[in-house]
Amino acid sequence: MTKARAAGAGTEARTSPPFEPGRVAVIGAGQVGTMLGMALGGRPGVEEVVLFDRDPDVAAMSLDRGAGDRVEARVENALGADTVVVALPVGEIVKILDRFGSSVRSGTLVMDTGSAKTVVVDAMRRSLPESVAAVGAHPMVGTEIPGPAGARPERLRGAPFVLTPARDDPAALARARDLVFLVEARPVVLTAEEHDRLVARSSHLPHVAAFAVAIAAARADGRTAFGQLVSTGFEGATRLARSDPAMVASFLSANRHEVRAAVADMAEALTELASALDDPELLGAELARARRFLVEAS
Amino acid sequence: MTKARAAGAGTEARTSPPFEPGRVAVIGAGQVGTMLGMALGGRPGVEEVVLFDRDPDVAAMSLDRGAGDRVEARVENALGADTVVVALPVGEIVKILDRFGSSVRSGTLVMDTGSAKTVVVDAMRRSLPESVAAVGAHPMVGTEIPGPAGARPERLRGAPFVLTPARDDPAALARARDLVFLVEARPVVLTAEEHDRLVARSSHLPHVAAFAVAIAAARADGRTAFGQLVSTGFEGATRLARSDPAMVASFLSANRHEVRAAVADMAEALTELASALDDPELLGAELARARRFLVEAS
Repeated sequence: MTKARAAGAGTEARTSPPFEPGRVAVIGAGQVGTMLGMALGGRPGVEEVVLFDRDPDVAAMSLDRGAGDRVEARVENALGADTVVVALPVGEIVKILDRFGSSVRSGTLVMDTGSAKTVVVDAMRRSLPESVAAVGAHPMVGTEIPGPAGARPERLRGAPFVLTPARDDPAALARARDLVFLVEARPVVLTAEEHDRLVARSSHLPHVAAFAVAIAAARADGRTAFGQLVSTGFEGATRLARSDPAMVASFLSANRHEVRAAVADMAEALTELASALDDPELLGAELARARRFLVEAS
Repeated sequence: MTKARAAGAGTEARTSPPFEPGRVAVIGAGQVGTMLGMALGGRPGVEEVVLFDRDPDVAAMSLDRGAGDRVEARVENALGADTVVVALPVGEIVKILDRFGSSVRSGTLVMDTGSAKTVVVDAMRRSLPESVAAVGAHPMVGTEIPGPAGARPERLRGAPFVLTPARDDPAALARARDLVFLVEARPVVLTAEEHDRLVARSSHLPHVAAFAVAIAAARADGRTAFGQLVSTGFEGATRLARSDPAMVASFLSANRHEVRAAVADMAEALTELASALDDPELLGAELARARRFLVEAS
């Protein structure tokens, strides 16, 4: 992976002409697929964007938002494009790769957008021919609104867009990076394992925490009065718990191993903070250490 | 407290002329004191706003922001105003009440802004003469920026402003409510115990959670890569952990009993969610239940 990392690191000037995505297929026209379709449409080197969704209504809504030039009714046909982006929940991505991967044409660039990467790159390695350019991907941007209506392509600008190469294939990675630049996002090249470990804490844990705050609030009696007290602080802390529960359950579950470790760390932190409540100075010092990490990480 | 509640409930039309705050003293010219001084200055019935702060530089900064007409150098003199608002950390409020409370003039309205109310109303009952109108208060609005610079008086508009009467004194409560209306906030009348229980979950727990997410993130290695992955979701979930650690430690500690109960509920919720990670459907159902509470409470 070191070699792949080197090929993807930084913002070094490129020496080859940028990759042209050609005919692009977006498989899964929900929030993320619609966002990418909208962001890719009309960019240099993009001949057309074709949308596939199992639910024709979703595909039609996505088309309505300008995410593609046409809808393709069969996933097998969509997989015949030059660039394929599978924008589905992780479990579905793996199913499609395992079922149809062997028929993908040589030279096709296959990416996904799943929020857990180890299981996806494993499926890519297992099911896509060596001649296919396979790069796991995860745009770290989204909204709480599910479906095509939630797509906000403008948020891609400057957003981290993780790339986890499935194979030691610098040319494939270079093409994936060019696609990320095309939508004005910021490629971050990691191994799938690094991604899963970090994202468990940067994205999945905040979701779990938001739901856990809501559950603890629900356990207080006096609900009516509670509603009157809801502050901007509470709203901010629980914003992620307004996401689609099935979607969140799906990505948490797909990364369960790392999520469980992150939740255990958080539970331990809660216990430590709770036991420092009697000593404001000790508590303040613990909080200051946590705050320092945030300031350094941002 | 039932009687006090009835007197304070709802937005019923008033039958008496509104209370005139007269000469107002704000004791403690930090973020909250500055906010209230700015919001009260020039309102009908406000003759002047006087600022006291132990730190003359803070008082001067607050005056600069327009939070008062002049600075008073001695807290004893400030306590001679018609309306006194003690805007300090809970421990300091209790100290001032216990030390100087017995000398407060009959008919003075004394309020505070502390984020834990049981210890404050206990001190009010203990240390203020019966003839003083004593109402605990907690404006549920603030920013992460400490000191006068963090004051955002415009956020008071429509914000919940909890009132916890120290005594069964409907006239005192009516005056406190008028003051809340004067700054365009929304009075919410509760007993001190109700306030502490609810705020532990609506405000204090979100703070603890934000710090705990940051601590769990810090425990992952790969800090450099972590910084590249920070998403809007992570930023939102940890926003409260950018607050002044000493201030947060102080209000968490002042409400430690209820905060500990809320943290225990949250830790239990985390454990339940973690153990549901193997079963996305069960997990989704638990998340959906939490989400429903949020939708109903807002």
